[in-house]
Amino acid sequence: MTDPFDALAIAADIREGRRSAVSVMSATIAAIEVRDTSINSVTRIFGPRAVAEAERIDRRLAAGDDPGPLAGVPFGVKDLFDVAGEVTTAGSVVLRESPPATHDAAVVARLRAAGAIPVASLNMDEFAYGFATDNAHYGITRNPHDTARLAGGSSGGSAAAVAAGLLPLTLGSDTNGSIRVPASLCGVWGLKPTFGSVPREGAYPFAASLDVVGPFAGTLDGLRVAYEVMAGGPMAGLPAVADLRVARLGGWFGANMSDTLAGAIDAVAAHLGGLETVELPEVARARAASFLITAAEGGTLHLPRLRRHALRYDPATRDRLIAGALLPAATLVQAHRFRNWFRAQVHALFRSADVLIAPATVGEAPPIDQPTIMVDGQPVSARANLGLYTQPLSLAGLPILSAPLVGTGGLPLGLQLIAAPGREAALFALAGALAQAGLVGRVPLPASKER
Amino acid sequence: MTDPFDALAIAADIREGRRSAVSVMSATIAAIEVRDTSINSVTRIFGPRAVAEAERIDRRLAAGDDPGPLAGVPFGVKDLFDVAGEVTTAGSVVLRESPPATHDAAVVARLRAAGAIPVASLNMDEFAYGFATDNAHYGITRNPHDTARLAGGSSGGSAAAVAAGLLPLTLGSDTNGSIRVPASLCGVWGLKPTFGSVPREGAYPFAASLDVVGPFAGTLDGLRVAYEVMAGGPMAGLPAVADLRVARLGGWFGANMSDTLAGAIDAVAAHLGGLETVELPEVARARAASFLITAAEGGTLHLPRLRRHALRYDPATRDRLIAGALLPAATLVQAHRFRNWFRAQVHALFRSADVLIAPATVGEAPPIDQPTIMVDGQPVSARANLGLYTQPLSLAGLPILSAPLVGTGGLPLGLQLIAAPGREAALFALAGALAQAGLVGRVPLPASKER
Repeated sequence: MTDPFDALAIAADIREGRRSAVSVMSATIAAIEVRDTSINSVTRIFGPRAVAEAERIDRRLAAGDDPGPLAGVPFGVKDLFDVAGEVTTAGSVVLRESPPATHDAAVVARLRAAGAIPVASLNMDEFAYGFATDNAHYGITRNPHDTARLAGGSSGGSAAAVAAGLLPLTLGSDTNGSIRVPASLCGVWGLKPTFGSVPREGAYPFAASLDVVGPFAGTLDGLRVAYEVMAGGPMAGLPAVADLRVARLGGWFGANMSDTLAGAIDAVAAHLGGLETVELPEVARARAASFLITAAEGGTLHLPRLRRHALRYDPATRDRLIAGALLPAATLVQAHRFRNWFRAQVHALFRSADVLIAPATVGEAPPIDQPTIMVDGQPVSARANLGLYTQPLSLAGLPILSAPLVGTGGLPLGLQLIAAPGREAALFALAGALAQAGLVGRVPLPASKER
Repeated sequence: MTDPFDALAIAADIREGRRSAVSVMSATIAAIEVRDTSINSVTRIFGPRAVAEAERIDRRLAAGDDPGPLAGVPFGVKDLFDVAGEVTTAGSVVLRESPPATHDAAVVARLRAAGAIPVASLNMDEFAYGFATDNAHYGITRNPHDTARLAGGSSGGSAAAVAAGLLPLTLGSDTNGSIRVPASLCGVWGLKPTFGSVPREGAYPFAASLDVVGPFAGTLDGLRVAYEVMAGGPMAGLPAVADLRVARLGGWFGANMSDTLAGAIDAVAAHLGGLETVELPEVARARAASFLITAAEGGTLHLPRLRRHALRYDPATRDRLIAGALLPAATLVQAHRFRNWFRAQVHALFRSADVLIAPATVGEAPPIDQPTIMVDGQPVSARANLGLYTQPLSLAGLPILSAPLVGTGGLPLGLQLIAAPGREAALFALAGALAQAGLVGRVPLPASKER
């Protein structure tokens, strides 16, 4: 049987007639209905329309048409992407009574044009504000590797659905780490593309100067093809790995991580021949600037609705948005000035390196009944702090691939591969080499949880 | 005798031995001392050091050295540019007890390296916040064409000193129109270069995302050479005027101007063979966004000092800065989002035009005893509103040359020539052609006021 994690293998089966798109879709829907109960990654199944769309793919194949490289591949969307005819909730109840979307989000339309079929909307922190996917209205999404633990967020449903083998491909969004954190904690591939390179039309916004949309996938090749479709065309050819200058981010990005994670990153560095460690200045301030810009932009977006419907918001989101809307402009001016300076510091690192590596989170997924992580010896809220290593990098608009580390023995852990804007090809080249060496790759579920 | 308005003729006289730099400098200082009493464009004369510097230029020439294209040319600086050894006040008293600058501002250093000599600091609205050059500490600068009228601001001293024939070259800064407004009202040439193209180091800031420094000059060639020196190198060659697509900004930029000004711009349009009129959308909002960004960035800059020394500020500046510091972040987020959108609209106009023309102010300089202008039939404060046509364009970072219109009979009036970022050469090419046709050029003082 085809690997349910491999979007390209599923498309090949369908294109070459080994399975019909309808049979893939029916099996996908059945699997979600049976197996998502313990995970809660899916908020709605678009059943009839997905089956009808699969039938159209089968008819086109029968007629000799080519439906595209993702022919018949079922995918899910974080519930902030418009799917024509469906209501986009962004994880809230205040949007639940909005009219259905009249058009697909731009990236949904592109994936559809490549043959893929949206079958489900996926759980998230309300309005994408959190790293936990603990949603007061739609419940908590549980980590498929250990359902007593968080999946991470805010795109937690998107990561967990891939990790559980329910969907080979999903969409998420990343403002401060909302793709990278759950990809890391669930042990799947995730990509935050270069800011501005993938269209956001039809994706419910959060912080306009930071928001990026991107894919999760069960295989690296699936991630690559999804990204290329979403970006509107293939990347430049992948560079030779031997030509890539790789360095390791130290300082802020070397502190606080678990011993297991440090050991796994040491192994990657050793495989690459020993890496120079480089440092970014003022990372704590960069994180603070991200927090402030996010709060101000998010608060401004929600201010008119908060004035009327504050009590319909998730309490964990409401107070952060209100606080953001109340910030003084002087705070934001300082954050923007710092951001300009910091961006220049980040870009300067890429004069001597093509790819930087850093941990994605401090360690494995926190338990749901004690949702904290340790930072500088103190327990702090996981919901607000899981982005410790992802958030400071968001200011600079860089492409970052979250690669699952393997061979660490326990729960999944993730590695950020970071490049200069537009250099996604360098990330895929390096990730491919590390996968070939057995250092990164999707983390298999414990045997008891495989289907 | 050499034209005192012509920096290049003065430099040629000195380089070719017809006059010494010391004699030029002595005459300049004497003229300021005698004739600036009625204008108040100069706040301090750097007498001994300027003469010593002129002596060095003469010695270098005697030794066969080339001191540069501006050899011995006296210039003045708006009192926000650092001159090593002098205190930079930015038109305030709160900075008057600061230590003297240890280095020249970057543009002062470049002009000095080209042989020019700073001889005076020039009056301005306190901290550059105003269009009037009405300064509670240093007095009002009067228009050399009619000393009962405003010179415009905030770089009013820089424009008036050139208009009065006291200095052939001065430096100013333009955040919302502070070069273009006084150049227009005083009948001299002024240039706001492309945002970011001329270094601001050592110029006291106002609103960091808008501030640009630039020159005023008594001749177009003087303006061009000063700009090239300040920008660090010569422009690309000037394009042929016949190849330039010129259009006229209508709508907002066609309303409110005086009949004389409209007639003068009609004459320019007719000379160019009749111009298509193009419009920008949402100009009122663009002006509002400029006001808000300026207030927030200026207020943030001054907040720590306002907390301690508010009563030492000019009352006309203080309340605007305090109001800016108190703005909510939500206001600024909206202004930035609008700015991104508006910038795209402005840049779109340059797909079908190389240069746009528009009036610089609504009409001639307002009287000092009634400092208002008429906008939409209502008298409004000149200090806050003279930038009606300049301020909305500041959001887009464009290069804009303020050309004095001639043949209008009365007080000076100015024309904005506007190009896409980096296209200063198109502005100088068109200005040269219009000057040759007798449509623009420095406006001579009434006979009674010439020396």
